[in-house]
Amino acid sequence: MDRREFLGSAGKGVLGAAAVGLAACNQATDAGATTLAAEAAGDNSLPQVEWQMATSWPAALDTIFGGATYFAERVSALSGGRFVVDPREGGELVPALEVLQSVQSGGVQSGHTASYYYTGLSPVTAFGTALPFGLTYREQNAWLYAGGGLEQMQEYYAATFNTIQFPAGNTGAQMGGWFNKEINSVADLQGLRFRTAGLNAQMLAKLGVQVQTLPGAEIFQALQTGAVDAAEWVGPYDDQKLDFHTVAQFYYYPGFWEPAPTLEVQIGLDEWNELPSLYQDIVRSAAKEANMNMMNQYDFLNPGALTEMLESGDVELLPFPDDVMEAAQEAAFELYDELGAQTPEFAEIFEGWNSFRQTTHEWFGVAERAFLTFATQPPA
Amino acid sequence: MDRREFLGSAGKGVLGAAAVGLAACNQATDAGATTLAAEAAGDNSLPQVEWQMATSWPAALDTIFGGATYFAERVSALSGGRFVVDPREGGELVPALEVLQSVQSGGVQSGHTASYYYTGLSPVTAFGTALPFGLTYREQNAWLYAGGGLEQMQEYYAATFNTIQFPAGNTGAQMGGWFNKEINSVADLQGLRFRTAGLNAQMLAKLGVQVQTLPGAEIFQALQTGAVDAAEWVGPYDDQKLDFHTVAQFYYYPGFWEPAPTLEVQIGLDEWNELPSLYQDIVRSAAKEANMNMMNQYDFLNPGALTEMLESGDVELLPFPDDVMEAAQEAAFELYDELGAQTPEFAEIFEGWNSFRQTTHEWFGVAERAFLTFATQPPA
Repeated sequence: MDRREFLGSAGKGVLGAAAVGLAACNQATDAGATTLAAEAAGDNSLPQVEWQMATSWPAALDTIFGGATYFAERVSALSGGRFVVDPREGGELVPALEVLQSVQSGGVQSGHTASYYYTGLSPVTAFGTALPFGLTYREQNAWLYAGGGLEQMQEYYAATFNTIQFPAGNTGAQMGGWFNKEINSVADLQGLRFRTAGLNAQMLAKLGVQVQTLPGAEIFQALQTGAVDAAEWVGPYDDQKLDFHTVAQFYYYPGFWEPAPTLEVQIGLDEWNELPSLYQDIVRSAAKEANMNMMNQYDFLNPGALTEMLESGDVELLPFPDDVMEAAQEAAFELYDELGAQTPEFAEIFEGWNSFRQTTHEWFGVAERAFLTFATQPPA
Repeated sequence: MDRREFLGSAGKGVLGAAAVGLAACNQATDAGATTLAAEAAGDNSLPQVEWQMATSWPAALDTIFGGATYFAERVSALSGGRFVVDPREGGELVPALEVLQSVQSGGVQSGHTASYYYTGLSPVTAFGTALPFGLTYREQNAWLYAGGGLEQMQEYYAATFNTIQFPAGNTGAQMGGWFNKEINSVADLQGLRFRTAGLNAQMLAKLGVQVQTLPGAEIFQALQTGAVDAAEWVGPYDDQKLDFHTVAQFYYYPGFWEPAPTLEVQIGLDEWNELPSLYQDIVRSAAKEANMNMMNQYDFLNPGALTEMLESGDVELLPFPDDVMEAAQEAAFELYDELGAQTPEFAEIFEGWNSFRQTTHEWFGVAERAFLTFATQPPA
């Protein structure tokens, strides 16, 4: 056992021992359950808390499912092992795309999912993950954490889903996905059967695409059997694990419908309100760490996976043609007008989001863009 | 007092009450300092810890000094107020550019600084902040956290400075700075007196620049009095606060010598080893949060500051000419060869870092670059 492991298990014992010690001590004067700590806190603080966590992910995808497991690890570490979260893969506790509904109903205490899976319940959920032609990773985090975006979204979730959510993962700009035919112009999208998710479904429908939203675990078979002509999931590391490169040839970029999708931890509001303040702070910290950690993992693992798939010789890496990007962008902003007209809360959040999008895109057009275009090139 | 404030102060009391309770309880059987908790942990756990923190920053720069204050806030929140860090502005405890020396000697328990201020002690410190033509924000974090970079750097710091460090802030790609004359080609760098920091000093010296490294608080006066012809600090938000736009006209980009400088918390190794495991985990979490939080703050605040300075009408926003970037890149890699020949540890870390730089630049040349170049433009 090395020093860190030793301190880890020792630390785990500390809070437990403190609680036991207090309880034993107080039994002399008070046979009830009240302890000094609980008196000081005004409620039963530092309790043992155990939560299940439903997720939307196959456990084999260690990066995206890792958002849930890393969150759980940090919650445990920061609570000396007294607050335990147990993440399960998609479908194990509830269907992979019904995590929010289950958290809302109290069927499970917590979830890890992509909020844009729930645009059928409300289009507002899309802001929590990604909007087509929206924000990059840094822009998204700036809007959520510094720009008031998360507070706005939390107010909406509390009122609508009796749920509180925290960003807890991001994939960065995704790839456009795997296609069995070349896309040479916007006309080639007509009738294309394509697996994707979020508002992209409605945007691409405007361009004639027939969209299906399948959970990650079901995409390979759909692509292999020809149930879809094309499919996107995340990017090289996940896509290689899911073997898409063995059943489709053309690998398009960028996934303009999700420049930086955020995954989130969702918690039933009643569960949340029962947590001691210290545990709430632990959740905030663990979720932020999970948010950054998932991005780091993808950024470290994607380059090698892309190289390997390209070296296999069967994969052709292609950018989407300009006219596809331009037509899609026009369709996206048309869609945002329609959604705003139907759902006032969408319009309200969109206004601030879109204003930030415009100024931040100007700033990222300066130093970041100049350095990135000087320094980077796609693989030859 | 709202619920959150109430729980905050209640939570703060919990651990304190637990320790007090245990101490009082144990006095009955043991007059010494040993408590049940301490017995369980095998050392004196959950102690009250108070650290001073020396920084390199003017307190008025709420973003970069905020890396230290936000770290301190999170440490306090996650420890129920028992672990207190007190950050002071540059020069208050020790000279702004001598934080590492003071942490090393035990003069102060902790610091928040840029490790590349200490390239005079060892060029290896540069990897902790930024190397010219190095890694972007996401690439840097991927290398540090997922790619083993931080472990390598921590081993080096432990052996060389008796210090452990954690990334705790980033500014993103900086601006190239404020110039009193236009830079139309690499020849215009000859004899230029320029405030900058890190290995950039040695790189630009190869191109004829006379470099001075001044702390942030001293730059304005040097630029105003003509002691330097040009100066770079961070980017629009800080630069506006420091009034550089009132004494120089040409605002160049990008700061190719620091595509994503990391700031770090430095802790004396003896202090670190005395911390209970739980407090060490708190430091890890608080530093990661501070790392992300500083980036979010800069990304949220820079766009507006840039717009305001450009609208003042006296500022001209200009990209560095290609030949300047190319000549500087050549000088940088020549420098890395020289430093590696002099310092074996530099060569060892450089090898892995540079290999990662190449593959990650290929990956960022695909989806991220394609989306960023489609979506962003500098302000008109």
